[in-house]
Amino acid sequence: MAIEKVNIAEKLSQINDTWNPRIVGELNGQHVKLTKADGEYVWHKHDNEDEMFLIIKGNFKMELRDKTVEVKPGEFIIIPKGVEHRPVTDGEAQVLLFEPAGTLNTGNVINEFTRPYLQTI
Amino acid sequence: MAIEKVNIAEKLSQINDTWNPRIVGELNGQHVKLTKADGEYVWHKHDNEDEMFLIIKGNFKMELRDKTVEVKPGEFIIIPKGVEHRPVTDGEAQVLLFEPAGTLNTGNVINEFTRPYLQTI
Repeated sequence: MAIEKVNIAEKLSQINDTWNPRIVGELNGQHVKLTKADGEYVWHKHDNEDEMFLIIKGNFKMELRDKTVEVKPGEFIIIPKGVEHRPVTDGEAQVLLFEPAGTLNTGNVINEFTRPYLQTI
Repeated sequence: MAIEKVNIAEKLSQINDTWNPRIVGELNGQHVKLTKADGEYVWHKHDNEDEMFLIIKGNFKMELRDKTVEVKPGEFIIIPKGVEHRPVTDGEAQVLLFEPAGTLNTGNVINEFTRPYLQTI
């Protein structure tokens, strides 16, 4: 496979929905994903996967059961496996995710946010 | 361990040298690292690890044996295991790395750039 760089803004410009991660890179069994987010997500956890959220743009908060962490552009947060969390945004936010290939976006919850098949862009 | 966000610029402000990655996060056996870079690195490869370079700031080029890829701030490149590469910058650049924990910075080469023990900041 040819080695090509990825421009994050260009990939984000191809995304016209929210809470629907696209795969933009793969390494060591991990996926790099990009998603747009808007509003309140669903409380969930991942039993076997740690998850990293790197904020590219927007007003993003990570709700945990014991506190809420505001994560600004240029900041990231790692949610360890087993920890319940809920992303919440004020308006549209743009997020880079780093997590094992196969991680289900809603973890232990299956609902209208669940995206079992992710597109690679 | 308490879940805290990481501010990339704040971590970079603690780094006063080049080609000396600091660990700023860990998930799924992978490390998130930050480094400053300046000038020509060493040609090397990693036999067992894919490596991702996300450029935060500066003029960064990834030299491969068959081409050179300019990677700008907001862009990333993934170098698969086994592929020889050499980062080169024009002035100081700031780079976020994703790679498996234990990845040696100079891969199959041991020289003055080699940092066998990385600090966590």
